[in-house]
Amino acid sequence: MTDPLPLGSTIGILGGGQLGRMLSVAASRLGYRTHIFEPGANPPAGHVADALTTAAYDDTAALTAFAEQVDVITYEFENIPTTALDILETHRQIHPNREALRISQDRLTEKTFLQGLGLSTAPFANVENAQDMDAAVNAVGTPAILKTRRFGYDGKGQARLNTTDDAAAALADMAGAPALLEGFVSFSHEVSVIAARNLQGEVACFDPGENVHSDGILRTTTVPARLTASQRMDAVLLAARILNELDYVGVMGVELFVTTSGLIVNEIAPRVHNSGHWTQNGCAVDQFEQHIRAVTGLPLGDGQRHSDVVMENLIGEDMDRVPDLLRAPETALHLYGKTETKSGRKMGHVNVIKARTE
Amino acid sequence: MTDPLPLGSTIGILGGGQLGRMLSVAASRLGYRTHIFEPGANPPAGHVADALTTAAYDDTAALTAFAEQVDVITYEFENIPTTALDILETHRQIHPNREALRISQDRLTEKTFLQGLGLSTAPFANVENAQDMDAAVNAVGTPAILKTRRFGYDGKGQARLNTTDDAAAALADMAGAPALLEGFVSFSHEVSVIAARNLQGEVACFDPGENVHSDGILRTTTVPARLTASQRMDAVLLAARILNELDYVGVMGVELFVTTSGLIVNEIAPRVHNSGHWTQNGCAVDQFEQHIRAVTGLPLGDGQRHSDVVMENLIGEDMDRVPDLLRAPETALHLYGKTETKSGRKMGHVNVIKARTE
Repeated sequence: MTDPLPLGSTIGILGGGQLGRMLSVAASRLGYRTHIFEPGANPPAGHVADALTTAAYDDTAALTAFAEQVDVITYEFENIPTTALDILETHRQIHPNREALRISQDRLTEKTFLQGLGLSTAPFANVENAQDMDAAVNAVGTPAILKTRRFGYDGKGQARLNTTDDAAAALADMAGAPALLEGFVSFSHEVSVIAARNLQGEVACFDPGENVHSDGILRTTTVPARLTASQRMDAVLLAARILNELDYVGVMGVELFVTTSGLIVNEIAPRVHNSGHWTQNGCAVDQFEQHIRAVTGLPLGDGQRHSDVVMENLIGEDMDRVPDLLRAPETALHLYGKTETKSGRKMGHVNVIKARTE
Repeated sequence: MTDPLPLGSTIGILGGGQLGRMLSVAASRLGYRTHIFEPGANPPAGHVADALTTAAYDDTAALTAFAEQVDVITYEFENIPTTALDILETHRQIHPNREALRISQDRLTEKTFLQGLGLSTAPFANVENAQDMDAAVNAVGTPAILKTRRFGYDGKGQARLNTTDDAAAALADMAGAPALLEGFVSFSHEVSVIAARNLQGEVACFDPGENVHSDGILRTTTVPARLTASQRMDAVLLAARILNELDYVGVMGVELFVTTSGLIVNEIAPRVHNSGHWTQNGCAVDQFEQHIRAVTGLPLGDGQRHSDVVMENLIGEDMDRVPDLLRAPETALHLYGKTETKSGRKMGHVNVIKARTE
């Protein structure tokens, strides 16, 4: 299948959060409609979608009806139940593919895959019980972080081991869920590459952004990132290698640690990525449109940066700053339409736009 | 009323075309929802709106229900029937106001208003019958254009008089509708100012764009326009004067002819304007968001241009160029989701983005 989806077709999106919302808007720019599938009530993406199905991921009838009403299926998050995918893919193609989901849904599988490609990762060990934990601490050392293998995001499902004495408490925190002990990497900063590959196998990458996290949540992405020309080349090439290996279709976020001994892959996300939000105001074609182009079989667009951008997430109480941000120069505000502000919840972001410097 | 509309409020938009569509997207960025009122089936704006009412402008029940479900009302076109406005405004505020609509709905009223402000317009005369026509031709001279006073757009409802011999045929073309004979103005080029005024009376203007029309339809807008610093100042000041005089709330498009003896106002449009589409890729805050900010009582945003832009409309058969435009560098594509391509129909536009030159 390499013929592009005709104008006016409907793209089904699993997940109705802010990523689905911005995917919907991008799809509309290309003349497509979107249909959101989301279990939660009043999802942000529903406000700008042509259709919305509110149903659980185990509702076979709803999944079937949804699939039959759309022309292709994509998603905004990687933790889609396998049983739902089984139903959906009997009706329509799903991009990115199952293999990308399988690998990114499990930290152990992901790191093993990356190492298999010859890429560097943090040291890691599988932890399913106390015996594994002892072996893992011996192998990886401390300090280290124990993370649930599945369903972790924004720093959730993680416990830090400063010394071996913290091992038992950390293991208890996992509540029996399979986990991964990750060693610390000594890195100067983190960057990410937002890469895209379309149905025809074309690959394009946006300029890498430099990320700053706090409490496990992304706070800012600055473009351009501090990288030498050869580091930038390495970053883009390794991202392309991951996408090609997976026969991937869509946008992927690849987080990298910059170290004196090269780039280390932190994690991959098989979807549009928070660290790519800067592209909305820095490029002619943003990551959301690039993803829609990829999954509909259109050519990838020009992701060249026309401006430098600092993206800052608005998290929880940051919403109090909105009145000031509305008046700030060079500042593009993007709110997600979430009615309830909660501490730690991503409510929006701003892109501060500057003339391109390099 | 100067308190901004709370996040999560719903903006009612009369008209479901591409302008309503892009207003909906802009409203979502500010955390608002939109509800479209449109008589036609499958309107472009419906694909990205939270709600859609499909009903005629004489459907009192539908108008009432619509008004009761929204928090403020705006519109994407000026020819809204007065009777519909009478019903709507008993329930909710409408921005821009009735006076702006009354003036812009009738070319005679509009030109009289502009002259009353001391602004220059083309010579004009009212024509309702053959006797008026004789007097008008004597007063205005030829060549001239006879235009219906109401409901004209994109060159429709117009007849050209090259000589006085064309008068009778031109009058017949009007089919009895009141018309205006406009003399020709010798101008070097046309520019437009997209100006905004909010509920608090703040005014902001985008950089003027230079427009090229063909067959009465806008083809391209180029920013920056060819203007001297003093012409640019004049353009912005006269636009602000119009908005202030009308106690206007929202975005207005002001078309100007550049002549050796100064700027002449061609026409005003009390809404977002095709010649302002370049702002989507040239500014942190575009004309659609500026309009939503204005009518919701938010502060106006920074409409400073970060990039130069050439906007080109995609009309009818121009859609055949979409495959090439998808691959073109520095090119942002905006399609309107119209299912049927018709000759002369606006189907989308592209913004070609260049580094800012001045």
